[in-house]
Amino acid sequence: MSSLALFRNESDTHAVAAGETIFLEGDEGRVMYVVLEGSVRLSVTGRTLEKVVKGGVFGEMALIDAGPRSATATAITACTLAPVTAQRFKALVKAEPDFAVEIMRVMAARLRSMDRRL
Amino acid sequence: MSSLALFRNESDTHAVAAGETIFLEGDEGRVMYVVLEGSVRLSVTGRTLEKVVKGGVFGEMALIDAGPRSATATAITACTLAPVTAQRFKALVKAEPDFAVEIMRVMAARLRSMDRRL
Repeated sequence: MSSLALFRNESDTHAVAAGETIFLEGDEGRVMYVVLEGSVRLSVTGRTLEKVVKGGVFGEMALIDAGPRSATATAITACTLAPVTAQRFKALVKAEPDFAVEIMRVMAARLRSMDRRL
Repeated sequence: MSSLALFRNESDTHAVAAGETIFLEGDEGRVMYVVLEGSVRLSVTGRTLEKVVKGGVFGEMALIDAGPRSATATAITACTLAPVTAQRFKALVKAEPDFAVEIMRVMAARLRSMDRRL
């Protein structure tokens, strides 16, 4: 399952122009985003960590531990994003175990990528 | 909820002596561990990433993405560990959404700690 399948028919989407900042490292975060169209750069202190493409998710950490944004997210191209609130995230984890596993998979990939930078 | 609560009465535990290597970075991994007693050092190429104490988990990444161990785990003190197979992990994520969220919380803490090293 891709997150995209769950959010494909989302009516509450968020359009972002190329180059626009979606959130800044250190910001308070209340939603996670699913990329429906376009691509997003995640960076920490100006260093690119990852490019998130269609079907990918970002911003999940602020929902999980209620901490500040750990990275800055910038639209590389024009994007359509589906925002997911903490409440919906919790409901999805409960109702769709595959969604929970997919979020863990995304986080595992990020951790492995970070390990390689050490 | 702490993982410890789910595994407190585990009969299938694994005793490890102080200084013993539990797994090596690059090993194939088939189980996650919950620390019931003792503490464990996680390291990558000799650098300590984290000390996992009673109630904590480690080794979850190999269950999530079936990749090799991303770090080496060494017992700091004598430990009692509860091994969790991939099959049981999947069943727990499905039956106990709080368990899934706790695993995500552990991963989020690790990602934040890695971000600070950049």
